[in-house]
Amino acid sequence: MRIVATLFTVLSLVSSLFGQAANYIQYVNPLIGTQKMGHTYPGATVPFGSVQLSPDTDEQPHNIGGKYNKDAYRYCAGYQYDDKTIVGFSHTHFSGTGHSDLGDFLIMPTVGPLQLEPGEASDPKGGFRSAFSHSTELVEPDYYKVRLDDNNIVAEMTATTRVGFHQYTFPAAENAHIILDLMHGIYNYDDKNVWTYARVVNDHTVVGFRQTNGWARTRTVYFAMEFSKPFVSYGYKEFAKQDYKGFWRKFDQSKNFPEMAGKQLRAYFDFKTAANEKIKIKFALSPVSTDGAISNLKFEIPRWDFDGVKRAGQAAWNRDLGKIAITADSRDDLVNFYTAMYHAFISPTVYMDVDGQYKGIDQNVHRANGFTNYTTFSLWDTYRALHPLLNIIQPSRNRDMVRSMIAHHDQSPEHMLPIWSHYANENWCMIGYHSVSVAADAIVTGNLLGAEANNALDKMVETAKVGYYDGLEYYMRLGYVPEDKNSSSVSKTLEYAYDDWAIAQAAKKLGRTAVYDEFIKRSENWKNVFDTSAGFMRPKDSNGKFLAKFDPLKTEGQGFIEGNAWNYSLYVPHDVPAMIEAMGGKRAFTQRLDQLFTMHLGDEFFADTEDITREGIIGGYIHGNEPAHHVAYLYDWTSDAWKTQERVRMILKHQYHAAPDGLGGNDDCGQMSAWYVFSALGFYPVAPASNQYLIGSPAIKTAVIHLDNRKTLSIEARNQGAKNVYVSKVTVNGRALNRDFLTYGDITNGGKIVFFMSDKHR
Amino acid sequence: MRIVATLFTVLSLVSSLFGQAANYIQYVNPLIGTQKMGHTYPGATVPFGSVQLSPDTDEQPHNIGGKYNKDAYRYCAGYQYDDKTIVGFSHTHFSGTGHSDLGDFLIMPTVGPLQLEPGEASDPKGGFRSAFSHSTELVEPDYYKVRLDDNNIVAEMTATTRVGFHQYTFPAAENAHIILDLMHGIYNYDDKNVWTYARVVNDHTVVGFRQTNGWARTRTVYFAMEFSKPFVSYGYKEFAKQDYKGFWRKFDQSKNFPEMAGKQLRAYFDFKTAANEKIKIKFALSPVSTDGAISNLKFEIPRWDFDGVKRAGQAAWNRDLGKIAITADSRDDLVNFYTAMYHAFISPTVYMDVDGQYKGIDQNVHRANGFTNYTTFSLWDTYRALHPLLNIIQPSRNRDMVRSMIAHHDQSPEHMLPIWSHYANENWCMIGYHSVSVAADAIVTGNLLGAEANNALDKMVETAKVGYYDGLEYYMRLGYVPEDKNSSSVSKTLEYAYDDWAIAQAAKKLGRTAVYDEFIKRSENWKNVFDTSAGFMRPKDSNGKFLAKFDPLKTEGQGFIEGNAWNYSLYVPHDVPAMIEAMGGKRAFTQRLDQLFTMHLGDEFFADTEDITREGIIGGYIHGNEPAHHVAYLYDWTSDAWKTQERVRMILKHQYHAAPDGLGGNDDCGQMSAWYVFSALGFYPVAPASNQYLIGSPAIKTAVIHLDNRKTLSIEARNQGAKNVYVSKVTVNGRALNRDFLTYGDITNGGKIVFFMSDKHR
Repeated sequence: MRIVATLFTVLSLVSSLFGQAANYIQYVNPLIGTQKMGHTYPGATVPFGSVQLSPDTDEQPHNIGGKYNKDAYRYCAGYQYDDKTIVGFSHTHFSGTGHSDLGDFLIMPTVGPLQLEPGEASDPKGGFRSAFSHSTELVEPDYYKVRLDDNNIVAEMTATTRVGFHQYTFPAAENAHIILDLMHGIYNYDDKNVWTYARVVNDHTVVGFRQTNGWARTRTVYFAMEFSKPFVSYGYKEFAKQDYKGFWRKFDQSKNFPEMAGKQLRAYFDFKTAANEKIKIKFALSPVSTDGAISNLKFEIPRWDFDGVKRAGQAAWNRDLGKIAITADSRDDLVNFYTAMYHAFISPTVYMDVDGQYKGIDQNVHRANGFTNYTTFSLWDTYRALHPLLNIIQPSRNRDMVRSMIAHHDQSPEHMLPIWSHYANENWCMIGYHSVSVAADAIVTGNLLGAEANNALDKMVETAKVGYYDGLEYYMRLGYVPEDKNSSSVSKTLEYAYDDWAIAQAAKKLGRTAVYDEFIKRSENWKNVFDTSAGFMRPKDSNGKFLAKFDPLKTEGQGFIEGNAWNYSLYVPHDVPAMIEAMGGKRAFTQRLDQLFTMHLGDEFFADTEDITREGIIGGYIHGNEPAHHVAYLYDWTSDAWKTQERVRMILKHQYHAAPDGLGGNDDCGQMSAWYVFSALGFYPVAPASNQYLIGSPAIKTAVIHLDNRKTLSIEARNQGAKNVYVSKVTVNGRALNRDFLTYGDITNGGKIVFFMSDKHR
Repeated sequence: MRIVATLFTVLSLVSSLFGQAANYIQYVNPLIGTQKMGHTYPGATVPFGSVQLSPDTDEQPHNIGGKYNKDAYRYCAGYQYDDKTIVGFSHTHFSGTGHSDLGDFLIMPTVGPLQLEPGEASDPKGGFRSAFSHSTELVEPDYYKVRLDDNNIVAEMTATTRVGFHQYTFPAAENAHIILDLMHGIYNYDDKNVWTYARVVNDHTVVGFRQTNGWARTRTVYFAMEFSKPFVSYGYKEFAKQDYKGFWRKFDQSKNFPEMAGKQLRAYFDFKTAANEKIKIKFALSPVSTDGAISNLKFEIPRWDFDGVKRAGQAAWNRDLGKIAITADSRDDLVNFYTAMYHAFISPTVYMDVDGQYKGIDQNVHRANGFTNYTTFSLWDTYRALHPLLNIIQPSRNRDMVRSMIAHHDQSPEHMLPIWSHYANENWCMIGYHSVSVAADAIVTGNLLGAEANNALDKMVETAKVGYYDGLEYYMRLGYVPEDKNSSSVSKTLEYAYDDWAIAQAAKKLGRTAVYDEFIKRSENWKNVFDTSAGFMRPKDSNGKFLAKFDPLKTEGQGFIEGNAWNYSLYVPHDVPAMIEAMGGKRAFTQRLDQLFTMHLGDEFFADTEDITREGIIGGYIHGNEPAHHVAYLYDWTSDAWKTQERVRMILKHQYHAAPDGLGGNDDCGQMSAWYVFSALGFYPVAPASNQYLIGSPAIKTAVIHLDNRKTLSIEARNQGAKNVYVSKVTVNGRALNRDFLTYGDITNGGKIVFFMSDKHR
């Protein structure tokens, strides 16, 4: 180990040497990714928490009445760093997604005349919206603080797994208000509300639910909120057109009437406040019922100790972040690493009450027996690196995520494992059936065993045979998806082939020969869309002819999705040698990769790439989207593995920055971040379920991985530096590694792995 | 006992003499009230059943898009006798209400090309609607049969408490269909659907739910349906405008896709049928979940034995109808009596799963511990005679109804006992807080005891003090409801005063002196709206001045509801002597009653009366609405009690007929029918909770009441006949009755009551 250590590494070392809880959260900057297209949020959450309590800036134009909001995409996570106003703090947010939903239960404190319209960003005082400045923001894991300038209210928030905790410091005011906006949400359409309901239980407790038809089609979230101080009065306004109120007309429901129901409601609660008086709110969520929310609230936050809850939440983050204790050259490296860890530990999210009850995708209430139920599975993204990472450093959670997927299958009308699921709904986003990869990875690595593994395999096989799913019937019959029958056909064919191979690997591990034989055969289907003459994967029609119209630089309408033929043609992670052979052998393949990383992608083609900024690409390599995430590691199969090392370091350096605009594309529920964590440690799972983690180039100095099996793996990148990016040798427990990859055992058996770094490649 | 008996009475006597189950259902004609404004339905239900499976004729114009359907009122129960077509068979119906909701889950069998629009009554073949004729109808308790003429399909249906059982006899058909219409409903607005969801579990099972915003604002009903034969294919159509389908666009959901969700769906299931092939459907409801519906289905109808289920349902009806075994002069009298019994045993309806779970008005799922939970409380109607009747002959059910009301209170946002509640919703229809009368009647008669009674009293008191409820704050402050602040103010004042008196009676029974004192004082508030100079109850403004504009013949805008000042001024059931005194003494009062029964109500005034036909009035006495239901019995307090006897017999004869148009107004969840049952037996509860059942004039020959305490009360109307309507003497167990009323004990202690009838009055 190098003796020279920066201030940051010394601090880190000292605390771990003395066995104290190290302060990892100081290296987390939740603002990273909040600018441009990272789609992360800055607010408070605990690891894998159900509540993500975060400010929404939401400066897009709105249009109640069902029209498409073209700016909604910017607000997938509710907050855009460049905005100047905050409209309030809502309790559910996706981290890094490329499509939107959630934003449930917006809370906003105000003083002065009651305003129930949010107002425009250009005139925040015209509504309950407020101007704010980043200079008053304090953003930490599980803690967010900001001053709402319009009314000089300081807002602070923290959270437990299921409960958001607000603390608002008011000025002296005769008419202070806390608004509960049940209309507010995040989605392409403003009127995704199906129904909302609230009940004022007493002068400090309110419960209710919100039912939406958004990305999730049939989704309900229940809440319970408790104020630290009784409100003196309350009321609400219904913003939806109401032709007929029935006999409810006999009440003035707008004021101090304890039952509120309708499509578009905003409620308010009135207070008198002394100068600097703090009003606190506990806001619990439940997938099941308002009673469930009340139980969650009482169980998780029994007292009004805001600082204590914050401390506990931050301690939880420190525990989870401390699973990998690194030293590095610079504070920025530490910030990039731990923020990546942080973003990798946000999704999937816990989806059940403290008593184990949750809503299944069959819309019935179930009880999770012996596991924690999770939701928010962005699987097209996260099967690549996030789940393999969790399978190593959060194996128990990852196993429960697989169990949650199996429960999903068992309750699913389509009898499928999840594709992209959230809140007891399948939203069918993106392609493939990558649950099978996550489950196969857990099975192959021995993290899921016995009857449970066999049951999982049954469900994987069933999923892979649902004919009406996205071209699968054609794929099973023809060996590929024909573009004239189903678009993005090449991407689908390639990913199905990989998924089928993953099923085969699990079958092999479990001795299920028939399944293995069936699916290893299917895994060769990638060959059916490889056009030898063009040298690219290329869409075919249902007559077996490659489409004449074909531009490998374009994405739109070319048989691909979120990646052009240049990138996607390299997607045979499960049989790289055969792919290289098909593409003309190692030398040609190296040249091809070189060309990808150095070409210029013209604006006409860049416009085609989704979800990413110009900074999200290197040459024609698109890091901001997932299909190429494994590509830099493909040199490992050529005679020029050093190029993997060089490229990986280049990507680490150029695609991740310790700043709000530090992500070149959507973080995608932690996939971009998990890529960072793996690559910074020196290895990456090119084909999850292969039990191979390809050697790259570690960017850390040292890392100590505290495994759940109580073993410890030390990683040392000896002589690592900005120029010393080449790996001349790797030893595992002192023995030289004679292959280009580590196995799950190399990592989880603990011990020591040393990368010998050099400024010269072999 | 008279020896002369008609064929009907002989049959009845014979069977009871031999201790066999008598066939009472032969005297029930469920078609009574289906023509004009009775608002009853002809379909299948068991006593107090959750399922009311009945044909909907629904020939009104429809207009998806939210406009008011002015003809909806005719279709409160879904079926109008004069209609020529049936649109299908739905599973939930109110019996006799004056406002509409329900009509959930319409099923319709068809053959030929699939039609998913109902079509017009003028051209039933243009849609799935079918012509039918009453000549093919067979209508019995818990059994309905009809031929659907368009396709020559014979439809039969029966039900258990929670499961409807359909049996369709098809012609030979290559393309037979069963339509499941999730759009269809009964309400003033066509688009009351909030959301619907269905899941095809396998080739013979479908589950789902329907959520509506109708009379009930936030209501969900879950279902499970099972076919006796697998369908060969299925599909659905979404009739609501859909701007955006999200990633569901990747499927063709319209055909053989197992998950359906949206606002306006109609699903269909395809079959091939042989000639005379029967396809059966079990259709279970649940207030809780689709899993609950499945459990209800399996528990209540485990087999495919249609005839067995029908037999069991009819046996249940025979048991309940047999609680009062009468003999009478004519078959029509028997039909009127047992159909009234039948209609009195339909509502309230059981509202919980077989495992005791139900949805509370707090929208949470609860478990009924030790009682059966009921819903559909049309209390403004039913507190008068229906609940007092149930308190005598269904005491256990009536006690559970009170328990259900108390659970409602405990779960209610407003902390009130129900006003008019159905399906975990309060709809606030009509006025007063008459739950207190029902509970007080049970307490005063000893049917609700001890801690439970005291708890009920607490909830009654709390209900009577909810200031924001319907003028109650003014009533409590001023002693009356002022018309300028709250309309129908006189009706409200009078009914609150009665309810307060009922609370006082319960308090007296329980020794709660403070409560008694408070509410007996409030019960005198009727005096505050009596205008001595006009001799009528009359609206006052908030300054204490009677309104100058006042017409005692009008209803609209005169301070009353569903009754004019002529009728409503007589509403002091709890202190008739004081009322008579205020109105000038007995002689004047008798003249006043005479005038009411003989006056002519001009068309301009009749137009004002709601819910009734011309036949529903006698002079100015309006039997078709409830406020005057006690009026004929008021002569009992004058020197001319014989006029009560005469009037009651006249009302029995003229207001009830054994024909579809046999009811002169809405049956109102059994209130009209309960009036008949009481009055035909010879007594009536003018003021429930008084423990007084005023003597009228029995219209039966004999009656044997089988009480739940295993005692038997025999009633004999000696010498009763069309002209012998006067009661010259009453003996209770041989001792002459020296008062004008029976007590609860006189009835429930069993023994024998003899009315000595004569053609001369005393």
